[in-house]
Amino acid sequence: MKEKSVGIVKTEYFTFARPPKEVKLESGEKLGPITIAYETYGRLNKNRDNAILIAHALSGDAHAAGFHEGDKNPGWWDAMIGPAKAFDTDKYFVICSNVLGGCKGSTGPSSINPKTNKPYALEFPLITIKDMVDCQRELIDYLGIKKLLSVVGGSMGGMQVLQWLVSYPERINSAIPIATTLKHSPQQIAFNEVGRQTVMADHNWKAGNYYGGQPPAKGLAVARMIGHITYMSDISMAEKFGRVKKANKEPFKFTADFEVEGYLRYRGDNFVKRFDANSYLYITKAMDNFDLLEGRDIHNLFKGISAKVMVISFKSDWLYPSYQSKEIVRACKLAGLEATYCEIDSTYGHDAFLLETEEETHLVTHFLKKVFFNSEDKG
Amino acid sequence: MKEKSVGIVKTEYFTFARPPKEVKLESGEKLGPITIAYETYGRLNKNRDNAILIAHALSGDAHAAGFHEGDKNPGWWDAMIGPAKAFDTDKYFVICSNVLGGCKGSTGPSSINPKTNKPYALEFPLITIKDMVDCQRELIDYLGIKKLLSVVGGSMGGMQVLQWLVSYPERINSAIPIATTLKHSPQQIAFNEVGRQTVMADHNWKAGNYYGGQPPAKGLAVARMIGHITYMSDISMAEKFGRVKKANKEPFKFTADFEVEGYLRYRGDNFVKRFDANSYLYITKAMDNFDLLEGRDIHNLFKGISAKVMVISFKSDWLYPSYQSKEIVRACKLAGLEATYCEIDSTYGHDAFLLETEEETHLVTHFLKKVFFNSEDKG
Repeated sequence: MKEKSVGIVKTEYFTFARPPKEVKLESGEKLGPITIAYETYGRLNKNRDNAILIAHALSGDAHAAGFHEGDKNPGWWDAMIGPAKAFDTDKYFVICSNVLGGCKGSTGPSSINPKTNKPYALEFPLITIKDMVDCQRELIDYLGIKKLLSVVGGSMGGMQVLQWLVSYPERINSAIPIATTLKHSPQQIAFNEVGRQTVMADHNWKAGNYYGGQPPAKGLAVARMIGHITYMSDISMAEKFGRVKKANKEPFKFTADFEVEGYLRYRGDNFVKRFDANSYLYITKAMDNFDLLEGRDIHNLFKGISAKVMVISFKSDWLYPSYQSKEIVRACKLAGLEATYCEIDSTYGHDAFLLETEEETHLVTHFLKKVFFNSEDKG
Repeated sequence: MKEKSVGIVKTEYFTFARPPKEVKLESGEKLGPITIAYETYGRLNKNRDNAILIAHALSGDAHAAGFHEGDKNPGWWDAMIGPAKAFDTDKYFVICSNVLGGCKGSTGPSSINPKTNKPYALEFPLITIKDMVDCQRELIDYLGIKKLLSVVGGSMGGMQVLQWLVSYPERINSAIPIATTLKHSPQQIAFNEVGRQTVMADHNWKAGNYYGGQPPAKGLAVARMIGHITYMSDISMAEKFGRVKKANKEPFKFTADFEVEGYLRYRGDNFVKRFDANSYLYITKAMDNFDLLEGRDIHNLFKGISAKVMVISFKSDWLYPSYQSKEIVRACKLAGLEATYCEIDSTYGHDAFLLETEEETHLVTHFLKKVFFNSEDKG
């Protein structure tokens, strides 16, 4: 696959609202300066109309494609981004940034609070999906892009896409929300809440003040394990693991007996090495508070917007079920938007948005070609 | 409802295999003496052929009906057991016992190990659903019952019912497995495993040796929260909670914002008061190890059995989905058993087996009447 790769890439950083200027967040609280980590692939054309913004999910980062120097594994959506891929870097200028509140270079709870010279921890303010999108808009301004060809993302990335449609419709030509929702349901909130509870129940969490000491690794690992169950499907788990037992010669003491247990523990332990527990709390909270219908009528949600929309969902995704995607399509139709809906027949569950890249490539390629052609016409 | 109640009841205790005699468990390990807590409602008739055994689920106990002296709340299946109820105590003799490994009077990890005079903790041996059923058979022997009119139970109770069919088919006239499975799936194992992980990640767990000190309350509470999400359905959560927020005037520090969060925390905290964390580990492990098809062909699973079977499942139950119940029915049909299958159209998810008592009453009443009439004929 390396021949179709964007090759070696580097994360860049953009800082705005340097003191004394601070950015006002949706909550009313102020935060600043804010740094946003981002990567770009491909080249911005002369018309500056070939830029596509990729929004990542809960545990993602700015490194969506290519390889960091010395790394064996490419970015998280490398199968979709590169020469002749869905987001064809020979044609498009692709941008991906780490969300506000994250821990991969953007300002988040593990960043140093300039007022105290210590990590923010829980002094970090409540952030929302809208705040994340506002930071992305700052980045787009900085990059000199007036109008994005498209905004794309799955899961929490899809929430950002929908927020772009509502907050900055004049700045986007099209939108591709994948496996996402207009508002988090009680079940989605509940799963995030138990994840937060496992983190906060960890003795090492210390009300968020664990920096410099032991992080709440066990709690965060279990939170991630819960996540992984919800990202897979009953069928995909059965196909992947069955009831296969691990070889184990120790006496019985609740070690992992089944392959599925070993897999979850492995994924949980791995996550801890690359993610900050407080970021996990803040970002999941932003997802839970996401509700585009709060104070808005679905009939008016997307009114007056001209962007083209393609909504994608996956049949076996029970965490972000297809009925939620259909609700997005309904909101588009009610506003007279040109909206396409595709339900991909996958058994991978919610993970499908990262795995069904062949189907997605097919859909995205055609959709973008149409949108780009139209935008060039207008240009 | 009190007029249809069995009234004030008392838990009784039956101890068998007193030292030096011990009971051999399925694992090959020995345990003894074993005490089983049980309750009975109604009267055993002269023919001793009106006895029904109720098997409880993960967090249940022997107190299935009526009121303990001074209690406001009745037993866990009171809506189903009593005069003129589904399990009509004017007609039937109803027995319910706490499972081996439990913490409500039956021998479990919190019991005193006679060899050390300390609680067993993790010295307690691995137990299985078959071991639970073997203890129930000892109790039935002790009560002088040759053949049960029926064995009934939902969820883990249903696993015990299926184990009865395999282990002691000659001792039962009928069986009603509800919302259960022939074997735990990887998804079911995974949810139990994260529950165990939250318990074991709790600083207070101390490899099971917390007796006499602080129990791993936070870990167990979160395990229970995870359980509750899986017991409900996406729809039932949406109907019960929506996105209603709790009144909260404190500054934002990850307290429960949504009703659903408050509910889960409440249920989690309550569970800790009444359940032993090590019992949670052992019992969930017994569920995960349950696999009637291990080393058996589905064609022969119930071969030669004459018991009548009624299988019940619930449409919105995604933890024990209907396809698992249909698999039970298939095994019955392959063995030529008289088996009925009823899928109740409920939105309550897995909890439905405790909540859809009206529908269940209808089904159980007719089924038992038919079985009892036939057994009297034979008698």
